[in-house]
Amino acid sequence: MSEVSGTPHAVRQSRPAQEVAEILAAAKSLAGPAMHEAVESLHPMLAEISSYHLGWQDADGRPVPNGGGKGVCLAMAVLSAEAASAAGEVGVPGGVAAELVHVFTHMHDDIMDGDDRRRHRLSVWRVYGAGRAILTGDALLVLALEVLSRISDGGGRTATLDLLSMCRRMAFGQAQDLNFETRPASGPNAVGVEEYLAMSADKTGALYGYALHVGAVLAGVEPAAADLLAQAGEHLGVVAQAVDDVNGIWGDPAVTGKPALSDLRTRKKTLPVVAVLSGRTPAALRIAELLGRPADADIDLEFAAGLLEEEGGRRFAESTAREHHRMALDCLRAFPMPSPVREDLENLADFVLHRTA
Amino acid sequence: MSEVSGTPHAVRQSRPAQEVAEILAAAKSLAGPAMHEAVESLHPMLAEISSYHLGWQDADGRPVPNGGGKGVCLAMAVLSAEAASAAGEVGVPGGVAAELVHVFTHMHDDIMDGDDRRRHRLSVWRVYGAGRAILTGDALLVLALEVLSRISDGGGRTATLDLLSMCRRMAFGQAQDLNFETRPASGPNAVGVEEYLAMSADKTGALYGYALHVGAVLAGVEPAAADLLAQAGEHLGVVAQAVDDVNGIWGDPAVTGKPALSDLRTRKKTLPVVAVLSGRTPAALRIAELLGRPADADIDLEFAAGLLEEEGGRRFAESTAREHHRMALDCLRAFPMPSPVREDLENLADFVLHRTA
Repeated sequence: MSEVSGTPHAVRQSRPAQEVAEILAAAKSLAGPAMHEAVESLHPMLAEISSYHLGWQDADGRPVPNGGGKGVCLAMAVLSAEAASAAGEVGVPGGVAAELVHVFTHMHDDIMDGDDRRRHRLSVWRVYGAGRAILTGDALLVLALEVLSRISDGGGRTATLDLLSMCRRMAFGQAQDLNFETRPASGPNAVGVEEYLAMSADKTGALYGYALHVGAVLAGVEPAAADLLAQAGEHLGVVAQAVDDVNGIWGDPAVTGKPALSDLRTRKKTLPVVAVLSGRTPAALRIAELLGRPADADIDLEFAAGLLEEEGGRRFAESTAREHHRMALDCLRAFPMPSPVREDLENLADFVLHRTA
Repeated sequence: MSEVSGTPHAVRQSRPAQEVAEILAAAKSLAGPAMHEAVESLHPMLAEISSYHLGWQDADGRPVPNGGGKGVCLAMAVLSAEAASAAGEVGVPGGVAAELVHVFTHMHDDIMDGDDRRRHRLSVWRVYGAGRAILTGDALLVLALEVLSRISDGGGRTATLDLLSMCRRMAFGQAQDLNFETRPASGPNAVGVEEYLAMSADKTGALYGYALHVGAVLAGVEPAAADLLAQAGEHLGVVAQAVDDVNGIWGDPAVTGKPALSDLRTRKKTLPVVAVLSGRTPAALRIAELLGRPADADIDLEFAAGLLEEEGGRRFAESTAREHHRMALDCLRAFPMPSPVREDLENLADFVLHRTA
């Protein structure tokens, strides 16, 4: 069809590959109207709270120019449809559903984890109270399912069932994560690395896996074939969690939008911590003792972070992220798709690996 | 078919009508295995918390003999299927889904409303913490949808879409209810009776409406015909809310399982309060002044309850309950059904009107 390229897939290569900023912007502009329409169908109070969380407006209801989250789920779903040689629009309802679930879980998790801040701003429950944050999250989960329920073909039904499986896994992962908090820092009942990675695959991997395969499902790809995309997404979710864990200790507050050393302040058992504690070195025992103290005790967080770094906690988390990034690319490579789409997905995967906030 | 009866509907009348205790017990025994199977499929921590809320076990995990809630939603769904001349089993997945949503909303609402007790026991968030109560509620909503998603015919799809509509209405109603809290007790912005009843139809009516029509939907009744049952259920939901409102002020703590005068303690704008405040009598102004004081201020609750009763608040709520009970029976009368099923539904409606806890 195209006169420029001689390959048989020329029609699929009718657009060039894009930089990450372009990928995210394109997906947001494609899915924006559907996102706004969905959120604005809620009770005005719930729509306002959702708009705050999404960064569309501030706590006083004033619009924020160019505000909003990164929209990684939207971009994944759009590229997922394009990977199946369909138009990006086909993936939009799946991307909107994934994004709404993403927001819902953030709103609820911030309460559970006692997180005061998200993306440089107070978290929803700190602005509107826990009650309203709970209710808005509930309404967003229902909304995600409503968006998919409007698609009456088989792809819509599969996308709905997959969303429910994803939510089940996310709840399972979050339950594990909450349980980790009350487990001892050392000894036979301490949290192990394998267990942590399984939790992370459920809690974050399931969401990215959903977003990265739902577009293909809506484009009519058989579930078995689309599963390669789901696996790629799942690995990227583990990458995202490991990167978050590193940023939660060593990230620059000006970039992360959270206080310095924030995960150590709240004594979270994140990957760098779990990796070092399972080593049972003298330094590990020292860290176990430090992090075993209550969250309001005044411990030397800088010292703990330094010890964790010396003992290889940071290195381990970073290499875990690289390893799952590589596995994600392997899965993508096994799925036949137009080459500009593949380049975009690889750019997005690199972005997930290298992001600092 | 039956030799006993000569009517053309003899086959449908093959069982006698039942007392309420029998109706509830029969539905529980029919739906029990499906309820247990669903709950036990959750993460063990979430299953444990759900079992506590459902009254199956105490906070230490010990089984409670004959424990458990009343299961009104289960009974409605089973009778709804029988009203469509199907076996009660047909309504079970719909009843289980409604019951799971009922539990999910109670768990979350208790946090939002700061309610410490439910059915003579500490509420879930007071036993397990708000975080775990939030997560368990989320998982139960997903579970309700999963239960319905296993039905692959058209009835299953309608039941799923209806469940989503119901959840949307419940969230809308709860948002209104939360907003009522911050509205003034008197003046043009005070909550009106009509507004209160609309909230109650969304918050409680939608659930009962769902339970009372989903069995018929699963039995293949056309949505338009099943709507009469939904309307009957919706009226019964308004009855249940009005009765709750009366019990929340004048109920006997030994029966309700909540502290005496509990809704006045928390300054809730329930129907008896709204009805009196909209009267603008001198007594109404006195009540507005009393209930306008913060929840931790020491006001004479007995005095306020007495004033509300003298001014007709209790009478108004009770007559509202009777009026909606009558409308529910009218809707049931317009839906052709086997007469023992009609008798059972009327018994259940009477139970909702007269219950004291």
